[in-house]
Amino acid sequence: MLIEKPLILITNDDGDFAKGIAVLTELMTQLGEVVVVAPDGPRSAQSNALTVTQPIRFHLLEEHDGLTRYSCSGTPTDCVKLAINEIVPRKPDLLVSGINHGSNAAVNVIYSGTMGAVLEGCENGIPSVGFSICDYSPDADFSAFAPYIVEIARKVLANGLDHGICLNVNAPSGPIKGMKVARQCDGRWVKEIVKKTDPRDRAYYWLTGEFENHEPESTDTDEWALANGLVSVVPTKIDMTSHEQLSKIADLLK
Amino acid sequence: MLIEKPLILITNDDGDFAKGIAVLTELMTQLGEVVVVAPDGPRSAQSNALTVTQPIRFHLLEEHDGLTRYSCSGTPTDCVKLAINEIVPRKPDLLVSGINHGSNAAVNVIYSGTMGAVLEGCENGIPSVGFSICDYSPDADFSAFAPYIVEIARKVLANGLDHGICLNVNAPSGPIKGMKVARQCDGRWVKEIVKKTDPRDRAYYWLTGEFENHEPESTDTDEWALANGLVSVVPTKIDMTSHEQLSKIADLLK
Repeated sequence: MLIEKPLILITNDDGDFAKGIAVLTELMTQLGEVVVVAPDGPRSAQSNALTVTQPIRFHLLEEHDGLTRYSCSGTPTDCVKLAINEIVPRKPDLLVSGINHGSNAAVNVIYSGTMGAVLEGCENGIPSVGFSICDYSPDADFSAFAPYIVEIARKVLANGLDHGICLNVNAPSGPIKGMKVARQCDGRWVKEIVKKTDPRDRAYYWLTGEFENHEPESTDTDEWALANGLVSVVPTKIDMTSHEQLSKIADLLK
Repeated sequence: MLIEKPLILITNDDGDFAKGIAVLTELMTQLGEVVVVAPDGPRSAQSNALTVTQPIRFHLLEEHDGLTRYSCSGTPTDCVKLAINEIVPRKPDLLVSGINHGSNAAVNVIYSGTMGAVLEGCENGIPSVGFSICDYSPDADFSAFAPYIVEIARKVLANGLDHGICLNVNAPSGPIKGMKVARQCDGRWVKEIVKKTDPRDRAYYWLTGEFENHEPESTDTDEWALANGLVSVVPTKIDMTSHEQLSKIADLLK
């Protein structure tokens, strides 16, 4: 009996030549047939942005047994839409995004291009997981994280994920002691703007910032897990409704 | 006794010359001191995208009693970060975004630049509301929506919103029968890609699509409210954790 291998779609936001996606691609070829559709350059902090005022293009980079790689001019979310609608032969059994060079824990989930792609896969009914490491270096070391990635991907392939649910997985940069399912930590970015002056004496501004953890004592958050040497796994959902607030807001607007 | 007027920050994703932001600005000057920091052109579907690979600039458009308007080179989320960190004299009492020309109901919340700005305001502890109308025309008629906008803004100014909660308000395009607090409808975009061929015989792709409502019978969703002539108000939250799934995912990964 011929058993079809799982079809795995891969993308990222650091671009198709980043080390993170090369490592992720290598790991996923152990588990199934892999199609990579990734941006042709860095698209960090692109969230779920879509390209709507200009066309998108893609082209084949390489194709051989079990692995096909495309480069796309769009955002990570564009890549997923294009892959699903035009490239893959059937709905993928798994979408993985990353490995992102840098944390997508806490509120970073709303800015992250890596997680934008994951939400897009989830929205399309594909079990979807984002992988990130708390190391912004282009040469980040993913070796300690790799076995966790394979284990999570295997289990999600075998069991799927519930409708509207995806996973946001982050790893600490150093040695890893284990894994913890956690919730998104409450916190915010501060000191976010650096002002500079150009040679014509006009001001310009760079985004930057420091993350301020609003609940450093809580032990059930992704930030706590990461600070304690654990891989954090946050079940993340497309439905942004605060169901708890429905009646309160109805009272407010009465 | 001198009572300080409320400070209201306004942005949008259709750009600072869109009719929607002009109407919203006019309405808000009835309620307080207004500062507008809006993109210098269309930034639709920019989600929570940040400008990180190049600098951002802004310049003053006009300043007179009770109203100051700036134009910014960045995304809607950039506008809010820049406004809070560099422009406004104190934390605004209210952030409003829009009025968007087009629906931000259902899953559109994750792609919307309008709602990206609202989530950013919320993340910074500012009561924040996004207003959108289901009419993509540059000359959309906002007159039936206007009294609802003023009422909601007044109530949010008076009562605030809970930590991590913002509002996603959408209006139908025709006459309005009332207002309903609702949840984000489950559904997805389909037929999302149009393929074309350029004069050099190379393929290019445009994003487009049709929204498919997965629960047309449910009467508690934003899509139902809009289809029935009601303004929909969805309490929306920054925390994307599926708290309900924490133990299930822990079991899955055991």
